[in-house]
Amino acid sequence: MNEDAPKPLSTEPYKGVRDFYPEDMFVQNYIFDTMRSVVEGFGYQEYGASILEPTELYRAKSSEEIVNEQTYSFKDRGDRDVTLRPEMTPTVARMVAHKRRLLVFPLRWYSIPNVFRYEQPQRGRLREHFQLNVDLFGADSIEADVEIIHIAHSLLKAFGATDTDFKIKINDRQSTLMGLREKNLTPQQEKLALQLLDKKSKLTQDEFKTEARKIFNDSSELEFKESDTVKTALADLRARGISNVIFDSSIVRGFDYYTGLVFEIFDTNPENRRSLMAGGRYDNLTANFGGEPVPAVGFGAGDVTMRNFLETRNLLPEWKPSTEICIATIGNTNVAANDLAQALRKNGLNVSVNVTDKKVGDQIKIADKQKIPFVLVLGEDEVKKKIFIIKELETGKETKCSSPEEIAKLIKK
Amino acid sequence: MNEDAPKPLSTEPYKGVRDFYPEDMFVQNYIFDTMRSVVEGFGYQEYGASILEPTELYRAKSSEEIVNEQTYSFKDRGDRDVTLRPEMTPTVARMVAHKRRLLVFPLRWYSIPNVFRYEQPQRGRLREHFQLNVDLFGADSIEADVEIIHIAHSLLKAFGATDTDFKIKINDRQSTLMGLREKNLTPQQEKLALQLLDKKSKLTQDEFKTEARKIFNDSSELEFKESDTVKTALADLRARGISNVIFDSSIVRGFDYYTGLVFEIFDTNPENRRSLMAGGRYDNLTANFGGEPVPAVGFGAGDVTMRNFLETRNLLPEWKPSTEICIATIGNTNVAANDLAQALRKNGLNVSVNVTDKKVGDQIKIADKQKIPFVLVLGEDEVKKKIFIIKELETGKETKCSSPEEIAKLIKK
Repeated sequence: MNEDAPKPLSTEPYKGVRDFYPEDMFVQNYIFDTMRSVVEGFGYQEYGASILEPTELYRAKSSEEIVNEQTYSFKDRGDRDVTLRPEMTPTVARMVAHKRRLLVFPLRWYSIPNVFRYEQPQRGRLREHFQLNVDLFGADSIEADVEIIHIAHSLLKAFGATDTDFKIKINDRQSTLMGLREKNLTPQQEKLALQLLDKKSKLTQDEFKTEARKIFNDSSELEFKESDTVKTALADLRARGISNVIFDSSIVRGFDYYTGLVFEIFDTNPENRRSLMAGGRYDNLTANFGGEPVPAVGFGAGDVTMRNFLETRNLLPEWKPSTEICIATIGNTNVAANDLAQALRKNGLNVSVNVTDKKVGDQIKIADKQKIPFVLVLGEDEVKKKIFIIKELETGKETKCSSPEEIAKLIKK
Repeated sequence: MNEDAPKPLSTEPYKGVRDFYPEDMFVQNYIFDTMRSVVEGFGYQEYGASILEPTELYRAKSSEEIVNEQTYSFKDRGDRDVTLRPEMTPTVARMVAHKRRLLVFPLRWYSIPNVFRYEQPQRGRLREHFQLNVDLFGADSIEADVEIIHIAHSLLKAFGATDTDFKIKINDRQSTLMGLREKNLTPQQEKLALQLLDKKSKLTQDEFKTEARKIFNDSSELEFKESDTVKTALADLRARGISNVIFDSSIVRGFDYYTGLVFEIFDTNPENRRSLMAGGRYDNLTANFGGEPVPAVGFGAGDVTMRNFLETRNLLPEWKPSTEICIATIGNTNVAANDLAQALRKNGLNVSVNVTDKKVGDQIKIADKQKIPFVLVLGEDEVKKKIFIIKELETGKETKCSSPEEIAKLIKK
C-alpha cells in the first residue's frame, strides 16, 4: 500500500441509525404508505417541518425532562442553540400557534417525521426513528379523543393485525393525578409515582410493589377510579365496533403536557412490552406561545416498534423491485432499445435498458438476480420485424408481442 | 400577566429552514411523486439513510473543501464527531462499498434526502433542502452517462417544462483539467481557475475576464476542446430526441470527486442563474473505503430551485385537500355518522366526521373554508330512511344517494 494513501474509511453508518437498502426502503415505504392511506381516510392532511428546531422550544415546562437529557443539541456557527427534534408535538404546536388566526379549526393534521434521541441503541429503540404523528386541533369534545383512538385501531387493522394481536389501554390522566393527590405525597414522591406508573407495563407485579414501597411505604397497586370521560370513551369506542379496549389507571404517559384522556396500545405478545402507539389530549401546549390555548388530541406511532410487531406476525409484504421489465441488447440496438423503453414508459411500465457490453446471457442473469420479473431481448432482427418476445423469468414462459401497448397489457396482468 | 409565567416562546422555525403547512406539503409531495415516478420509470430503486454521518466521511480528499467549511458538525454525548450530511453522494458510496460483494451490478438507485449546509439563507439556498439523487453504479460505458442525463431531461419534461425552458450543458472534466495543465499553472492557480470556471455562469463575460486576469495574467475565455466522450454523448443524446444540450468546457462541478463527463442544467430565464440539476461520473469515490473502486455516474436535483423554476413558469398544481367529503351531523347521529364514514372509507373515500357541537350551518362553512368538495348532512331522518343528500359545495348541486357505493361513485366521478 502506498504510504501516502489514507486509511480506508469505515462503511458503517453512525451508531444507532439505519441505512435503508432498497429492500429496507420497500418495507419502510409500505409502512408509510399504509399510514398515509388510513389517516387520510379519516380526513387528515399531511404537514412537515425541519428536524432543526431552536433548543428553546424544548425548554418549555410542558416537555418531559428525560427528553432534554437525551436530545442532540449543539450551537450552530452563529452561536444559536439548535436541537434535532426529539418528538414532533412541540413543532406542530408551534406551527399551529404561528398561524392560529388563519387556520380553520377543527384541524386534522398528520406527519411522519424522523426524530432523534441520544440513548443506548437496543431492540425497538434507535437514535433516529420515524414516528407517525396524528393530531386534531380545535375540538375539545370526547368525540375527538375517540376519533384519534379509532384511527390508531384502524391502522393496526389495515396492517392485517387482528383484535387479539393488540390491546388498547385508556385512562383519564386527571383522575390518576387526583388519586395520587389524595395520598398526600410530596411533589417529589408524586413525580416518582408517575414515573413508576409510566413503566408499570414493563415490570412484574412484584417488581412494581417493591418500587412503590421504596417511594412512599405503600405497596398498593396504585389503582384509581374510572372517570366519566373514560366511561363515555369506552362506550363510544365499543359503539364503533372496537372491543379490545380497556381502562387502566396506570396509563399516565411520560409527557407532562397531557391534560385529559391518554392511551397506549400494546402488543399482546408478552415478549414485546413496549407500547406500539400512544397519545392523548394536550389542551394547553399552544399556550406556551402566548394567546389562548387551542385544545388538541393526538397520537404517535413509531416505525421501529411497528416494524418489529409486523415482522413477528409475518405481516410484511415480500420485497420486489419497482422495475417491471429489462431490455437486454444484442448488437447495435441501443437507440432502438431506448426508443422502445420510452414507448413502454409512456404505457406506465418501469423499464431498465442494458448499458453494459456483457453477453446477453449475463444480462438476463443480472435481471434475474435483481428479481426483475420480465426480460425482452432486442437484436437487430427484432428491431426490423417489430416482433418482441417477452420472457417471464420465474416461469420461463415466453409471449410474442408486436407493440408497446401489447407488452404493457401483458405485464400489467 | 402572572409574574411567574414564562415569556411566550417564538413560533418561528429555526433560521433558514422551512415549515411545511399542508399547502406546502402538497407541492412538496407533488414534486417528490413526480421525481419518483420518472426515475422508477428508468428502473431505479429507492434507498435511504440517516442524516447523521460520522464526520470522518467528509474528511476524504474527494470532498469539496467548501462543504467542510459549511457543515453542521458537532460532538455527540459520547464524544463522537457527527455531521448532518451536506450531500448524499458520500453516503451512497459508503453504502455501496459496504455491500459491494452482495449487490448485483449495474445498480440503479435513487433517494430524495434532506441535506444541510450552514450558509446565509437566500433565494434558492436554504440551510436544509431536499435533493433527488439518482446514481448508476457498476457501469463505465458512455451509455450509462447518457442514461443519467436522459433521466434529468425527462424529469423536467414530466413537470411540464419545454425544451426552450432549460438548457443542458455538458463537458468532459478531464479535458478541461488537461487544458489547464498545458497552461503551466501552479497547483494553487489551477485550483482557483477551476473555482472560477465553476461560477462562470453566474458572472458576466467582463467579470469573468477580470477574475481570470487576477489569477494568472490571462484574460482568455478559458475554453477547451470537445473530447471524444463529449462528442459521443452529444450524438447519443440527440439520437434520443434531446436537442437542448450543448458542449461547454467551463462546466467542471465543485466536487473534486468527478472523473469524467459532467453536466449542469440551467433555466433559460436569465434571472435564475443557479443550476437546476447537475451531476457526472465519479469512478473513484468508493475506493476511499478500500478495495476496487466501483464506477459510478449520477446527478442531483434540489427541491428549492426546482420549486422556484416551476413556480415562475406556473407549472405547479393548485392545492386541494385529500379529504373528499365531510359528514355534518344534526341531533344524536354520531354513531350512525361514523358507521357511514367507515362504509365510505371501505369504498375508497377520505371522509371527515363532525366532532364539534357547532350548528350544521357552521359545520358546512368550515368544510367549505377547508375546501372539502362535498358535504353530507346526517339527521335522524336520513339515518332512518337511508336517503343521503350529497352537496357539492362549489356548485351547490345536490344529489340523492341511497348507499355508500352510490356516494363513492358520485364523488370519484
